Amino acid sequence: MANITKKVSWSSRTDESGTPGEGTPLLNGSERASHSRQDSQRGRLKEIPHNEKLLSLKYESLDYDNIENQLFLEEERRMSYMGFRCLEISRWVVCGLIGFLTGLIACFIDIAVEELAGIKYQVVKENIEKFTEVGGLSISLLLWAVLNSAIVMMGAIIVAFFEPIAAGSGIPQIKCYLNGIKIPRVVRLKTLVVKVCGVICSVVGGLAVGKEGPMIHSGAVVAAGVSQGRSTSLKRDFKIFEYFRRDTEKRDFVSAGAAAGVSAAFGAPVGGVLFSLEEGASFWNQMLTWRIFFASMISTFTLNFFLSVYHKNPGDLSNPGLINFGRFQSDSVAYNLYEIPLFIAMGAIGGLLGALFNILNYWLTIFRIRYVHRPCLQVMEAMLVAAVTATVSFTMIYFSNDCQPLGPEHSEEYPLQLFCADGEYNSMATAFFNTPERSVRSLFHNQPGSYNPLTLGLFTLTYFFLACWTYGLAVSAGVFIPSLLIGAAWGRLCGILLASIPSNGSIWADPGKYALIGAAAQLGGIVRMTLSLTVIMVEATGNVTYGLPIMLVLMTAKIVGDYFVEGLYDIHIKLQSVPFLHWDAPATSHWLTAREVMSSQVTCLNRIEKVGTIVDTLSNTSTNHNGFPVVVQVSGSDEPAKLCGLILRSQLIVLLKHKVFVELARSRLTHRKLQLKDFRDAYPRFPPIQSIHVSQDERECMMDLTEFMNATPYTVPQETSLPRVFKLFRALGLRHLVVVDDVNRVVGLVTRKDLARYHLGKHGLEELQLAQT
Amino acid sequence: MANITKKVSWSSRTDESGTPGEGTPLLNGSERASHSRQDSQRGRLKEIPHNEKLLSLKYESLDYDNIENQLFLEEERRMSYMGFRCLEISRWVVCGLIGFLTGLIACFIDIAVEELAGIKYQVVKENIEKFTEVGGLSISLLLWAVLNSAIVMMGAIIVAFFEPIAAGSGIPQIKCYLNGIKIPRVVRLKTLVVKVCGVICSVVGGLAVGKEGPMIHSGAVVAAGVSQGRSTSLKRDFKIFEYFRRDTEKRDFVSAGAAAGVSAAFGAPVGGVLFSLEEGASFWNQMLTWRIFFASMISTFTLNFFLSVYHKNPGDLSNPGLINFGRFQSDSVAYNLYEIPLFIAMGAIGGLLGALFNILNYWLTIFRIRYVHRPCLQVMEAMLVAAVTATVSFTMIYFSNDCQPLGPEHSEEYPLQLFCADGEYNSMATAFFNTPERSVRSLFHNQPGSYNPLTLGLFTLTYFFLACWTYGLAVSAGVFIPSLLIGAAWGRLCGILLASIPSNGSIWADPGKYALIGAAAQLGGIVRMTLSLTVIMVEATGNVTYGLPIMLVLMTAKIVGDYFVEGLYDIHIKLQSVPFLHWDAPATSHWLTAREVMSSQVTCLNRIEKVGTIVDTLSNTSTNHNGFPVVVQVSGSDEPAKLCGLILRSQLIVLLKHKVFVELARSRLTHRKLQLKDFRDAYPRFPPIQSIHVSQDERECMMDLTEFMNATPYTVPQETSLPRVFKLFRALGLRHLVVVDDVNRVVGLVTRKDLARYHLGKHGLEELQLAQT
Repeated sequence: MANITKKVSWSSRTDESGTPGEGTPLLNGSERASHSRQDSQRGRLKEIPHNEKLLSLKYESLDYDNIENQLFLEEERRMSYMGFRCLEISRWVVCGLIGFLTGLIACFIDIAVEELAGIKYQVVKENIEKFTEVGGLSISLLLWAVLNSAIVMMGAIIVAFFEPIAAGSGIPQIKCYLNGIKIPRVVRLKTLVVKVCGVICSVVGGLAVGKEGPMIHSGAVVAAGVSQGRSTSLKRDFKIFEYFRRDTEKRDFVSAGAAAGVSAAFGAPVGGVLFSLEEGASFWNQMLTWRIFFASMISTFTLNFFLSVYHKNPGDLSNPGLINFGRFQSDSVAYNLYEIPLFIAMGAIGGLLGALFNILNYWLTIFRIRYVHRPCLQVMEAMLVAAVTATVSFTMIYFSNDCQPLGPEHSEEYPLQLFCADGEYNSMATAFFNTPERSVRSLFHNQPGSYNPLTLGLFTLTYFFLACWTYGLAVSAGVFIPSLLIGAAWGRLCGILLASIPSNGSIWADPGKYALIGAAAQLGGIVRMTLSLTVIMVEATGNVTYGLPIMLVLMTAKIVGDYFVEGLYDIHIKLQSVPFLHWDAPATSHWLTAREVMSSQVTCLNRIEKVGTIVDTLSNTSTNHNGFPVVVQVSGSDEPAKLCGLILRSQLIVLLKHKVFVELARSRLTHRKLQLKDFRDAYPRFPPIQSIHVSQDERECMMDLTEFMNATPYTVPQETSLPRVFKLFRALGLRHLVVVDDVNRVVGLVTRKDLARYHLGKHGLEELQLAQT
Repeated sequence: MANITKKVSWSSRTDESGTPGEGTPLLNGSERASHSRQDSQRGRLKEIPHNEKLLSLKYESLDYDNIENQLFLEEERRMSYMGFRCLEISRWVVCGLIGFLTGLIACFIDIAVEELAGIKYQVVKENIEKFTEVGGLSISLLLWAVLNSAIVMMGAIIVAFFEPIAAGSGIPQIKCYLNGIKIPRVVRLKTLVVKVCGVICSVVGGLAVGKEGPMIHSGAVVAAGVSQGRSTSLKRDFKIFEYFRRDTEKRDFVSAGAAAGVSAAFGAPVGGVLFSLEEGASFWNQMLTWRIFFASMISTFTLNFFLSVYHKNPGDLSNPGLINFGRFQSDSVAYNLYEIPLFIAMGAIGGLLGALFNILNYWLTIFRIRYVHRPCLQVMEAMLVAAVTATVSFTMIYFSNDCQPLGPEHSEEYPLQLFCADGEYNSMATAFFNTPERSVRSLFHNQPGSYNPLTLGLFTLTYFFLACWTYGLAVSAGVFIPSLLIGAAWGRLCGILLASIPSNGSIWADPGKYALIGAAAQLGGIVRMTLSLTVIMVEATGNVTYGLPIMLVLMTAKIVGDYFVEGLYDIHIKLQSVPFLHWDAPATSHWLTAREVMSSQVTCLNRIEKVGTIVDTLSNTSTNHNGFPVVVQVSGSDEPAKLCGLILRSQLIVLLKHKVFVELARSRLTHRKLQLKDFRDAYPRFPPIQSIHVSQDERECMMDLTEFMNATPYTVPQETSLPRVFKLFRALGLRHLVVVDDVNRVVGLVTRKDLARYHLGKHGLEELQLAQT
C-alpha cells in the first residue's frame, strides 16, 4: 500500500525523497507507521481503496505565521511609515505584474490552440472531403487518429518524463497550496513551461479536455515566481522584493495568481477572487482581497486587449476570457417561475451524473495507481485515449444522419458535409469535429432545431465516458470544459424534449437556455464549487439574469452529489493522502483534547545549545522534526524546562551554515551579524543537513538561539478541546502549536497532521493512519 | 467634549446609561478619563473636531469565541452526529426564513413608497397643471412643500422620539456589529418597525434619500430576531433555535441578514455576500458563506416574486431588486480601449466630489452634535430640509426652459408640461419631480438629447448640496441612491460634452454609459467600498460588460478620495468614538508589546470565591469589568496565582440569580443543576447586578466557578508584539485576551479598546483617549 500511495504522489520523483517531511514526532510514531505498512500489505491482497485512509507524512506545511524573532522585529521597528507604504505599493505592483503575465500566458495558449487546431481540422476536413466521394474514409480516420496521437504523445512525454506534477488540471494542487500545504515543485518555472506546452498539445490533440484548469495553475506559478524577484531554476536573482521571501507573503501572491488564472480563463475577475477565497480564505483580509481583485482585473484586461488585437479588432474589450459562452440576450430567453422546479430537477440530474463521473474516475485512478505508473505506460495510455477519441468521434459522425442546412452566417467553423446534401452539414460533427469551447457555444446559441435529440443523446453518452477516461491521464488538461460540454448536450436534449410537450401557446423551453442550465448542473455535480462557480458562470455568460437559476442548480447538484461521493478534486486530494485541513473540526470531536491530539515526544532545544546536539537532532531521519520548542532550564531542577520560544529546522540550518557559534563570535569581533537577508536568500530551498559540514571542534561550540527563535509562539493548555485547537490553528495558518501545562512547560506539539487525521466518516469520527510514504 | 460625544451617540437614551461598559480596567484608567475631559473642555473652546480622538468606553464587544466551559463541552459531547446535522439543517432553515422575511419587508417598502409617492406626485401635478395657466403657482409650491414637510415630520418624529438608533442608513451600525461591537438596541424589533416606517416617510416626503441602506439594517434586525426564536420586546419565546442564543451564532445570522438586505435592495445576491464579507469577514467559513448566499438568494427571489405579482406579471423573475437600473444592452454601448483613461479621469472626479461631500457632511455632523441634539430640533430640521428640497426643486423646474418632446412610449411617469408646448415636457422635472430611483433610470437610459447640459449641471449642483444636508438628519434613509443620482447627472453631462467633441465618425460617448460610470464614481467616492460595490453595480445593471470599467472607476475614486478623507460611513463611525478594529494593526506598531498595550490592574477571581467578593466586584461601577480571569492560588504563597480560566460578568450574574452556592448545593441535594439553557434564557439582556438581591448570609457563601468558567482561554506572553496580539484577537473574534508571564500568572488583559486605541494618524502612530462617554 505504501508503495501504491507513493506512485500516485504528485511528486514521485526520487530526488524528492530526500526532502525532510514535516516529521512530527508521534507518540510511538514509528510503530504506527510500520503498522500501517503491514495493514497495507494485507490491504493489497483484499481491497484497494484503503489508501485514502492514510495520511502521508511527506507533505510539509506552509508557515503562515510570521516568525517574529528579534531580527524580524528589529527590521520592522527600523522601518518607517514610508517604508511600509513602499512595501504596500510594491505589493500592488507585483499583483499587477502577476495579472499581466497571467493574461499574456492565457493569450499565448489561446492563440496557439486556435492556430494549431485550425491547421489540424483543416487538414482532416480536406482529407475527409477528398475521400467522401472516392470512398476509403478509413484513411481519413487513420490520418485523424495518428495526428491526434502524435500531438498528444508530445504533451504526454514532457509531462510524464520531465514534470509529473504538471499533469491534470492543477486545481487540486493549488487547493492544497492555498490550504497551507507545501506540494513540492508545484510552483516552479519548469512546471509552468511543461504545463503550458502540455495543455496546448492536449487540446490540439483532440482530447476531451479544456485549457481552463491549467490556466489557474499557471497563474499561481507566475505569482510565486514574480513575487520572489528571482528564479532558482534559472539562477537569476533580481534583488527585488526580498521582503516577500517567506511563506506568508508568497501564499498571498499565489492566491492572487490563482484568481488571475480564473479571471483569464473565464473572463471572470470576481469569480476569480471568490475562487481564491473559497479555497484558501481562512486568512482573508480586505487589502489582500483588493489586491487579488486588481490582479484578476489586470489579467482579464491584458487577455482581452491582446486577443482583440489578434482578432483584428483592437481596443474592443467587451468579450472577455479564454472561453466565451457568447452573450445571452435576456429579453428573448428570460425564465419563468414554473421553470424553477425543472431547473432544480436538472440540478439533481447533474448531481447524479457528476457523482457517477467521480466514482468512475475514482476507480480508474486506483487502477492507474496500480498498473499505469511507469512514464512510458502513461504516455501510451494517453496516445491510446487520443486514438480512441478520434475513432469514436469519426464513427459517430459517420453513422449520424442528422443533416442541417448551413446557416447564412456560417456560424460553424469547420462544417463537414460528408454524406449530407449540398448546402447542409453534419450536425454531429459540430459537436465532435471542433474544439470543445466552440462546441459548447454552438450548443448554447444555435437556433432551435440545429440538433436532433438522438445526436445529442449519443454525444452525451460517448463524451461522458471519454471525458471520464481522459481526466487523470499524464497530460495537463482541465475538466471544466468537458463537464460543461456534457451538461450542455443533455441540457439541450432536455430543452428539446420539454419543447415537444404541447403547451398553451407560450414560447417556453428555448433549448439554449436549458443547455446553459445543464452545463451548470453537470459542472457543479463534478467539481462542487458553489459560490465561485455561480459567479464564474454568470460572468462567462455575460448576463446576470440567470444568476438565480444557476445558483439553485449548483446548490441542488452539490447536495445530491455530496450524498454519494465527494467532488472530483477532493477525491484526487484524498488519494494523495494530503493532510488537508477542512474549515472546521469534525462536529463530534469535542471529546478530544489537545492532550490526545498532540504528539508528545517533542525534541526541545536549550536556548544556548551545543552545536553537536543540534546537528544530531537535525540529522535524525527517524523523526525528521521541523519545529523545535526552545526552553530554558530551571536551574538545578530535573523537571522539563519552561518554554521560551520556537525555532524551525530551516532557521537552524542557516545558522549552522553561517556558523553562528558563540565562541566564534567572541574570537572574531568583526564577525558579520547574521541578518534576515541571509534567511531570505536561502528561502525556499534550504539545503539538507547532510550538505552542511560541521567539524568535530565545532560540534563542541555553543549556539545562542535567543535572537533567532520566535519568542512568542502560540500555545494552548492541554485541556483545550480539539475544535478550539483546530480553530486557532486554522484561523492563524499555523504550522506548529505548542501545548503547555499550567506552568508553561512543553508537553506536546500539534501540527497539521495531528489535526487532519481526524475526520468524519460514515461511522462517526475516524482516525487516519499516518504513513511515511 | 464628553458631553458632545454623548449627544451624537447612536443610543443617547438615558435609560441606556446604566448599561455596563466594556470597562477594561486601565492602568490609571480614571485619571486618563478625567484628563480627556479636561482636554475636551479646552478643546471646546478652540477647536471642534477633537472628539474623534476619543474612544468611547461605552460600547461592549461581542464574544465570537465560544465559551468552552464544562457545561458547553458536556452538551457538545452528548450530541450525536445526527444532532449536529439537525443543527446544520436548522441553520439553513433560519437563513431561508431570514431571506424570505427580508424580501417581504423590501417588497412592502417598495410598494408602499410606490403607491404613496404616486398619490403625492399626482396631487401636486394636478395642482400645478391647474395653476400653470391661471397663474399663482406659488400655491402649488406651498402645497408641495407642506405635503413634503408633513410626511417627513411623521418619519422624523418616530425616529427622534421613539428610536434614535433607527436614524440614517444603518450601514455604519451594521458595519460595527459585524466588526464585533455591540451597539445597543440596534437589532431590536422596535428599531425595525421605526426604520421601515421612517424610510417610507422620508422617501415619500421627497427628501434626497434612498431606501436601500435601511434595507440592509432591516435584514440584520430580521436575522437577529428570527435566529433567536423569540422576541424579548413582545415577550414571546417560541422555544426554538435555543442553541443559537449566543453571540457567535447570532452574528453569523446577522451577516446573512445584512447580505439578504443588500440582495433585496439591489437585486445583487453575490454583492450581498461580498458586502457581508468585506465588513465582517475575519470569521469567514465556507459553510457560513454558502448559508449567507442562500439567504441572499431567497431574499431576491421572494422580492421578485411578490413584485412580479404586484406588477401584474406573476412569475416573471428577471427584473430583480428594489432598485432597477434597467438593462444595458451590451451590443449598442460597448466601450473601447481609448475610453479607459476617460473612465479613470471620471473616477478621479468622483473621488474628489466624494471627498468634498464627506468633508461637508463631517462639518455638518459636528454642527448637529453641538446644536441640534434635542429631538424636537431634529424634527424641525428634517421638516426644514423637506420644505427647502421642495422649494429648490420647484424653483429649478420653474426657471428651467429645457423642453423635450414626449416620447411615444411615455417613459416618464409624471411628465410635467408646465410652460412647455403641448406634446413636450419639462426635462428638469424628470430629475426632480420623481422618486430618485426613477430619476437615475431616466439618466441611464433616456435617449441622447433628452437633457441639455445646463439642466444637468444645475441639477448636479443643487442635488449635491441637498443630499449632503440630508444625510445625518434624524430620519431613516440611505445615501446610495442620492450618490448614484448625483454621479449619473454629472456623468451624463460628461458624456454630452464628450460627444460634442468632433470625432472621426465613430459613435462614441453614449451619454447613458457615462451616466453609469459617473454614478459608480460618485458612489465610490462617498462610501469607498470596492469589491462589493463593483459586484452590486454589475448585478444591478444586469450586465457584466461594464464590470472592468466600473472596477477601475471605483478603485480610482477610492484612491483619490482616501487621499483627502475617509469614507462617509467611517467618518460617522469615528464620530461615535466606536472602538472599531481594522483589518491589521497599524503598520508601525511593532515596537509595542502586549505589556504596553494591556490593562494591567486586572481583577481576578478565585476558582472558589466568596459570594460577597463577587457581588462587590460586579457592583464596582468605577471599573465595570466584563471578564474576570479565574486563578488558583499556589498554597501558602504570596505571589499572584496561576491562571485557570476566564469567566464573564453575564455568567456570574446568572450564577448569582440562581444562587449556585456551594453551601446550598450541599444542603439541598435535590437542587437542580444549572444548565446551559439557563444562560441562554437570559441572553442577551442579562439583568444588571443591582437587580439581584443577595442577603448578608448569602454573602458569606462560596461559589465554585470551575464548571462555568472557560477553562482554556487564549493567552499570550507579555513580549508578544502588538501586531501579533492584534492578529490573534481579530482572527478569532475575541473579547478578552489574557496576558500571562512565563509561569502562567495573570499580568494583564487585552480588550478591544486596548487595540483600537492605536491608529495611524498623519504623524505616525497615535493613541486615542479613552473616555467613559
